[in-house]
Amino acid sequence: MEIISGGVCAAKGFKANGVHCGIRKNRSKRDLGLIFSEKECSAAAVYTSNLVKGAPLIVTKQNISDGKAQAVICNSGNANTCNENGEQIAVETCKAVAGALGISEKDVVVASTGVIGQPLDITPIKSGIPELVTGLTENGSVSAAEAIMTTDTKVKEIAVQFSVGGKTCKMGGIAKGSGMIHPNLATMLVFITTDCNIAPEMLKKALKTDVQNTFNMVSIDGDTSTNDMVVVLANGMAGNEEISEENADFAEFMKALNTVTVALCRMIAADGEGATKLLECKVTGAKTEEDAKKVAKSVVCSSLLKAAMFGADANWGRVLCAIGYSGADVDVNSIDVAFFSNKGMVTVCMNGVGVDFSEELAKEVLSEDDIDIVVKLNNGTYSATAWGCDLTYDYVKINGDYRT
Amino acid sequence: MEIISGGVCAAKGFKANGVHCGIRKNRSKRDLGLIFSEKECSAAAVYTSNLVKGAPLIVTKQNISDGKAQAVICNSGNANTCNENGEQIAVETCKAVAGALGISEKDVVVASTGVIGQPLDITPIKSGIPELVTGLTENGSVSAAEAIMTTDTKVKEIAVQFSVGGKTCKMGGIAKGSGMIHPNLATMLVFITTDCNIAPEMLKKALKTDVQNTFNMVSIDGDTSTNDMVVVLANGMAGNEEISEENADFAEFMKALNTVTVALCRMIAADGEGATKLLECKVTGAKTEEDAKKVAKSVVCSSLLKAAMFGADANWGRVLCAIGYSGADVDVNSIDVAFFSNKGMVTVCMNGVGVDFSEELAKEVLSEDDIDIVVKLNNGTYSATAWGCDLTYDYVKINGDYRT
Repeated sequence: MEIISGGVCAAKGFKANGVHCGIRKNRSKRDLGLIFSEKECSAAAVYTSNLVKGAPLIVTKQNISDGKAQAVICNSGNANTCNENGEQIAVETCKAVAGALGISEKDVVVASTGVIGQPLDITPIKSGIPELVTGLTENGSVSAAEAIMTTDTKVKEIAVQFSVGGKTCKMGGIAKGSGMIHPNLATMLVFITTDCNIAPEMLKKALKTDVQNTFNMVSIDGDTSTNDMVVVLANGMAGNEEISEENADFAEFMKALNTVTVALCRMIAADGEGATKLLECKVTGAKTEEDAKKVAKSVVCSSLLKAAMFGADANWGRVLCAIGYSGADVDVNSIDVAFFSNKGMVTVCMNGVGVDFSEELAKEVLSEDDIDIVVKLNNGTYSATAWGCDLTYDYVKINGDYRT
Repeated sequence: MEIISGGVCAAKGFKANGVHCGIRKNRSKRDLGLIFSEKECSAAAVYTSNLVKGAPLIVTKQNISDGKAQAVICNSGNANTCNENGEQIAVETCKAVAGALGISEKDVVVASTGVIGQPLDITPIKSGIPELVTGLTENGSVSAAEAIMTTDTKVKEIAVQFSVGGKTCKMGGIAKGSGMIHPNLATMLVFITTDCNIAPEMLKKALKTDVQNTFNMVSIDGDTSTNDMVVVLANGMAGNEEISEENADFAEFMKALNTVTVALCRMIAADGEGATKLLECKVTGAKTEEDAKKVAKSVVCSSLLKAAMFGADANWGRVLCAIGYSGADVDVNSIDVAFFSNKGMVTVCMNGVGVDFSEELAKEVLSEDDIDIVVKLNNGTYSATAWGCDLTYDYVKINGDYRT
């Protein structure tokens, strides 16, 4: 497998674009994005577990209930959630873009991100669609990725090339992360495209399996959004024999999907609201997979540890504390903890008890912007990884007055 | 019932003191506190649910397994947790103070708060005990309360006077809150004294019942500490007939206990690390008590809402979001939300949908330092209250470099 460029347009037959249509006041910020496949695609999606669900999710769920889709439209600046006419606006958006693309409105995935509870006006969307469709290009991945950003500071895209049944397949994705990120069953906004030929039910299986170990293991702030959605479109244009069972081709597809999703998870965590550091908690030696996941996620979710990481303070007691309340079945007297970065590794706790370490080295290790928190539970054979970020002044600043 | 002064020394027969013994470097900060009853007391305690437990908790649990105690000793500056010789140090502390007081070491409650995983030296404790014991006084509640503070900015004490069987009883408490506060089954450090005559098993029942609706409904940062403990000592010196069953006297005792614990909960939340505002989420109309509690706690735990409250931003979508992921069985289309403070009330959401409101009034309401978030679920008859605080720059500052 090979990392390539092109994002969601890397795979054959996919074009994308992003424009400013006027949902946001800032005219230099794109606020409407589109991904289009020239062929109808197998489509699969997972959604937020939040009981309060954005109207676009409800419409998307209906539209791809047949396992098919051909386009994704997404606006930023307004979540279209908790609005009286939300579903109606989402349906009208699908109709408008389907008309311009000459496809069925039932083949449109619609998504929104931004403030909750403010009515979404259809006017700027309708007036922006002609430019959005005309400008569709094979170089449009970055524009689309920009159009779905809210407080994100970086475009998040990735693409890979892999081989299935002798045919070269490509897969790429874009994501919107930043805040209100603590996915459960689904996640933030992630759009993945591939030209691999795969049956809808196998695509669904691949996605559902993958998110358990990827997007569901990311947390920025413990808040599960109302609008989380991960969508994969597969148009089959790579020409491989359709993947319709769990064979070697499916395994290859899963590997490609996992490469794309893990890369996006890391990008989302590293660009969490206000974040200065990516935290990756690697847990090994757990009794069960569930225990490993609970521990990893509990550690990256601890506000106290996140603040300590911001301060490059090796306050490992907060790691032990987070393990202790994680709900996992652990033996607290057999836990080892170490911090690791490009600057080296520093072991801070063995068998649940602190060990002497160089504070100087620890400071150096923790001053990097990509930090591994390595937890050995020495209690079994299962492992898990979770991604998060530090808690900073800027998280408070960004969220203290988000609506203005 | 009447609020009185005196804290843990309000009840007959109790004395307290707090000194600087040298655990902390700052010589102006008291770091060793003591509460002493001239008569042996009925004693009950609840502890943290964190699997990683401070050594003092283990020793205290053994010491009050007979339902009796006569003194509480507590140091700040070091949690005595995750240390190889932690239990030994806690036992030695009990021995030393019991010797000086002329009581059994098995009648001592021992507690610690501060950094996890740094060996606790017994030397300053032993050398501080003579001054600590000599200085015991009926005016010592504030000194003791100061000695258990870490990043707390305010002394937390309260006392009430109530009547049981024609006898005037008194009850008072002190608390240490601030950070790593998200109790589960037990909580931070809270010491409550009363001269009411009550059997140990009834005292235990009263405490266990009360904490479910008080300390377990407080969250500062979602981190459940390793050293949480609530202890009640009842020395019986008020002379009432012993409370030994769930009668009217027990009900009166429960009412007094609840008045003391709710007051301490509010003080702990208002003085959360970096906090500028007390948040009180009042939920009504839930299907079950459990649902009401889940919703209330989810709202006060949301980092996004906490940051919005810091910014006095009526971003009520974050309240809906937190309700939606709380795990409670709610009808999202029947939820009403309002913000309330001394400046008035502003309704922001009816039936799950935003309503027009004056942003000016909302800003005024939310600029106060004591804010109620009123949630009507309109789905049943159960209610609950949870306490929390806003998320501020200072929380990050305090926790970015706690150990130095």
